[in-house]
Amino acid sequence: MKTNRVGIKKKAIVLGCAAIVGLFACACNSQAQTPGETPYKRVLGADLLITNATIVTMDGERHIFENGYVWVREGKIVSVGPTSELQMGYPKGFYKVIIDAKGKLVLPGLINGHTHAAMTLLRGLKDDVTLDEWLTKYIFPAEARNVNEEYVRWGTRLAALEMIRGGTTTFVDMYYFEDAVAQETKAAGMRGVLGETFIDFPAPDNKTNAAMLSYGEQFLKKWRGDPLIHAAVAPHSIYICSEKTLRDAFALARKYQAPILIHVAETKKEFDDSLAKNHLSPVAYLQSLGLLGADVVAAHCVWVDESDRKLLAAAQTGCVHNPSSNMMLASGVAHVPEMLAAGVRVGLGTDGPAGSNNDLDMVEEMDLAAKLQKISKMDPRALGAKEALEMATIEGARAIHMENEIGSLEPGKKADLIILGLDAPHSVPLYDVYSQTVYALKAGDIETAVIAGRVVFRNGRVLTLNERAIIAKAREYGKKVQASLK
Amino acid sequence: MKTNRVGIKKKAIVLGCAAIVGLFACACNSQAQTPGETPYKRVLGADLLITNATIVTMDGERHIFENGYVWVREGKIVSVGPTSELQMGYPKGFYKVIIDAKGKLVLPGLINGHTHAAMTLLRGLKDDVTLDEWLTKYIFPAEARNVNEEYVRWGTRLAALEMIRGGTTTFVDMYYFEDAVAQETKAAGMRGVLGETFIDFPAPDNKTNAAMLSYGEQFLKKWRGDPLIHAAVAPHSIYICSEKTLRDAFALARKYQAPILIHVAETKKEFDDSLAKNHLSPVAYLQSLGLLGADVVAAHCVWVDESDRKLLAAAQTGCVHNPSSNMMLASGVAHVPEMLAAGVRVGLGTDGPAGSNNDLDMVEEMDLAAKLQKISKMDPRALGAKEALEMATIEGARAIHMENEIGSLEPGKKADLIILGLDAPHSVPLYDVYSQTVYALKAGDIETAVIAGRVVFRNGRVLTLNERAIIAKAREYGKKVQASLK
Repeated sequence: MKTNRVGIKKKAIVLGCAAIVGLFACACNSQAQTPGETPYKRVLGADLLITNATIVTMDGERHIFENGYVWVREGKIVSVGPTSELQMGYPKGFYKVIIDAKGKLVLPGLINGHTHAAMTLLRGLKDDVTLDEWLTKYIFPAEARNVNEEYVRWGTRLAALEMIRGGTTTFVDMYYFEDAVAQETKAAGMRGVLGETFIDFPAPDNKTNAAMLSYGEQFLKKWRGDPLIHAAVAPHSIYICSEKTLRDAFALARKYQAPILIHVAETKKEFDDSLAKNHLSPVAYLQSLGLLGADVVAAHCVWVDESDRKLLAAAQTGCVHNPSSNMMLASGVAHVPEMLAAGVRVGLGTDGPAGSNNDLDMVEEMDLAAKLQKISKMDPRALGAKEALEMATIEGARAIHMENEIGSLEPGKKADLIILGLDAPHSVPLYDVYSQTVYALKAGDIETAVIAGRVVFRNGRVLTLNERAIIAKAREYGKKVQASLK
Repeated sequence: MKTNRVGIKKKAIVLGCAAIVGLFACACNSQAQTPGETPYKRVLGADLLITNATIVTMDGERHIFENGYVWVREGKIVSVGPTSELQMGYPKGFYKVIIDAKGKLVLPGLINGHTHAAMTLLRGLKDDVTLDEWLTKYIFPAEARNVNEEYVRWGTRLAALEMIRGGTTTFVDMYYFEDAVAQETKAAGMRGVLGETFIDFPAPDNKTNAAMLSYGEQFLKKWRGDPLIHAAVAPHSIYICSEKTLRDAFALARKYQAPILIHVAETKKEFDDSLAKNHLSPVAYLQSLGLLGADVVAAHCVWVDESDRKLLAAAQTGCVHNPSSNMMLASGVAHVPEMLAAGVRVGLGTDGPAGSNNDLDMVEEMDLAAKLQKISKMDPRALGAKEALEMATIEGARAIHMENEIGSLEPGKKADLIILGLDAPHSVPLYDVYSQTVYALKAGDIETAVIAGRVVFRNGRVLTLNERAIIAKAREYGKKVQASLK
C-alpha cells in the first residue's frame, strides 16, 4: 500500500496541481472510512478510470491525447493526460470502474442548450406546415388537451432516454410542470438547467401570473444547491410576456441567483413587431429593461444585428443556436460567425422535438450548424467542424454560464463525458478528429455516457431508465394525443 | 399439396394479375425441378415473405399498408398488400425466408443518385477550406499518389458496407477503374449504375482519351445484361471535358444504350464560365450539342434557371440533388421545388464522402433536402417529408431512368427493400410515417436490407462483405494517404 501511495504521489506531481488537491482531499476522507472497505479505496481510490482512448479535451489549448486517460473521482475529473503518464502499478480493484477505451473517442458530454423535452410526445405530430397552422391547429390544442404532470414526466423520461443515448449530458429545458421535469432529470442522472415557463395566458400548470410566480419561487427554493439540477425561470419571450411578466420573472430569478431562459429574436415577425411596438429590436428592448445579463440564456437570436451583438457580448448573455429548428420552421439563419467574432457566447440546441427538428440529436445539430453557415455565406470556411464541436461543448457551457463546471475535460470539472466507438464503416479512415465527429460520426456511435462520474449508458443500455416502459408509454400517449385531435 | 395449390390460386386472384403471372411462371418452371427439392418449393414457392410490417409502397397511389406483407420470388416482388389477405395455410418451409416484421417499417431500398464510392478512403481528409484549396492541395495530390485498382476495390467495398447498412440498395457512381467498382458492387450484392470517368487529363486508370474510350467500350460490353450492374459512361463535366470528349463519351454510351452520368451546373463558376465561353448556360450548352436526353443523369443542377428547367423536363433528363455536398462546399441551393413543378425528374444523392458530406447516409440526406429548401425559401412548406422520401425512392428511380425496375414496392419490380426498426427512443410516438422517416429516424434504424430478393443485411451483419477486413484495410489506406501528403 505504501508503494501505491508513493506511486500516486509521483504521478500526481506529473499530472499537476489538481491531482495533488485530489490527493489531499482523499487523505482527509480516510478518517471517515466505511467498515469493510479496503482503506486505499477511500483514501486513494478513483471512481472511474478511462484509458487508452483518443481524448478530445476541449480545454483552453484544445489538447487532444491520442492515447490518453481520464481519471474521475467523486463525480469530478481528477486529471487527464497521455496513458503513458499513468503508473499502472495499482491493484485492479483500486478503481471502481476501469474502462479500457482502446480505439475509441472520448469527448466532453454534449450540451443541448435549448429544448422542450416533454414535447417528445408530440414528435412529428404535424410537419411541413406554416408556424401559425402548426401552433394553432396542432400543438396548442394537443397541449391543451393532454399536458398534465404525468404527461410531462413521461415526455421528459423519453427525452432523457434519447438524449443520454445521443451523448447529451446537460440540457436546458423550458416547459410546464418543471418540478416534475427536474425530478425526472435527476432520476435519469442527467444534468439540467430547467426553467418553469412564464406566459401571459393560462398555462397547463399555472393558470395565473401569481400562481406562476409562487410555483416558480417554490421550484427555485426546492432545488437550490442540487448537484445536478439548476432550477431556472423561463419567461417565454417578449411577445408572449408583458413587460410586467418579464420584470417579475427576472426579479424572481435574480433573487435566487437562478438562470433565466428566454426565446429571443427567433422570427422576423418578432423582430418587426418589437420595432413597431418598442422602437427597439428584441435584444435592445430587453437591454432597455435592464434584463440582459450574464445570467440569461437567449434561445435562437436569429434576428440580431451588429448593435444587438455588441449588447449581447457586453452583457455576457448566452445565445443558443438551433439550426435544425430554424431551418424546419423557416425562421432564418442566425449570424453565428459574426456573433462568435463579436465575442458573444454561442451554444447549440435542438429545440423541441415536435415539428422543429424532430429529434434531440446533438451530433446532427453540429453537422447542420456548420453546413448551414457554409451555404448561407457561400463560403466553406464560414463555420468549421471544430467550432461546431465547441458550440456543443465548451462554448455551449459558456452560453449557459456553466463553463467553470462542464464543457471540457479538465481537472476539477464535473465528470460529464461520452465515449464513441470508431469501428463503423462511416468512421474510417480517420484523418481529423473534429471533422470526423461533426461530419461523419452519428449519435448511434456513442457507446458510453458518464454524468457526474456516474456511468448512465453502457453496453447498449441506459442504466437509469426503464427503456421498455418509456417507449410503450410514449406509444400510448401518441394514440391518446391523436384521438384528442379528432 | 393440392390444398396448397388451391390456396395459392385463391390468393393469387385476390392479389391481382402479377401474382397470377407469377403462378404461371412457376408452373412452367416445375419441369426443371432439382432432384431432392420438394416440388412445391419450385412450383409455388416464394423466396422471401415479409409480414406484419407497415409497408410504405411509394407506388402510384402511395399506398401504405399498416399491417402488410411483401411477397418476393426470384428477385422480384410478386405482390404487396395487407397481411390479412394472405392465406397462411402453407407449410412453413414453403418460403425460403419468412421475416416477421411486426412493428417495423418496410420501405423501398434507397437510391443514392450520385456518389464517388471509392472516395470513402479520403473521408474527412480535409474540410472547411475552399473548393480550390481542397482540390489542389489535398484531393488531387492524394488521388494522384494513391488511387490504383486495388485502392478502388477497397474504397468501393467500404462504401458498399456503409451504404447497405444505411439502406441504400442502388447507387450511381462516377470514378476510375470502374470495372473494379462493378466487380465489387456485384460481389456486395448491390445494384449500381456505374460510370467510367472521362476527363481531359490523364486519369489514374486511363492516360489518354483513346484509352478511356477503349476501356469504356470494353466495360459497357462486359456488363451488358447483368442483373445488378448497369455500366455507364461518365464524362465528368462541361468544364473538364472538351466538346469532343463529351461527344465521344455520349456517342459511346448511346451505341450501347448505356446511361450517361455527368456533373451539371454545380457551381456559379461553372455557370459563369459557360455563359462567357458558350454564351449558354451549362444545361443549354449540353442541349445545343444534342446531349440532353432520357439517358442522362445530371448531378447537382444547382445553377439552372427556368428555361434550363424546361429543357431538362422536355428531354426527360434526370437531375440528382446533393444537399449535403452543396452546403458543405457552398455550391448553392438547387431549386428543387421549381424543378419538380416543371416536371423535371429529381433524385437525391450524397456525392462523394470526402470533403463534401462526409458520409453516404441517405436518411440524413432526405432530412437535409427538406430542411434546406424550407430555410432557403423561408417557407416550411417548400419541400416536405413525403417529397424528400420520394426523391430517395421512386423519384430517384425516375431520375436514373429505372422507374420501371426499382423505387417502389409493386408487383413486378425488383425486390429492393429495407426494414427499419421503430423501437428506439427517437422513433416514438409515430404520428406520420413520412415525417418520422425523414425527420426522426436514422440510418442506424435500418435492420435489414434486401436487394434483388437477396437478404444482404440482417441482425447487424452485412452478409456479403467481410466487414472487419474492410475496416482494417481502410485504416491502413488512411495512414498511407496521410503519409503520401507529407
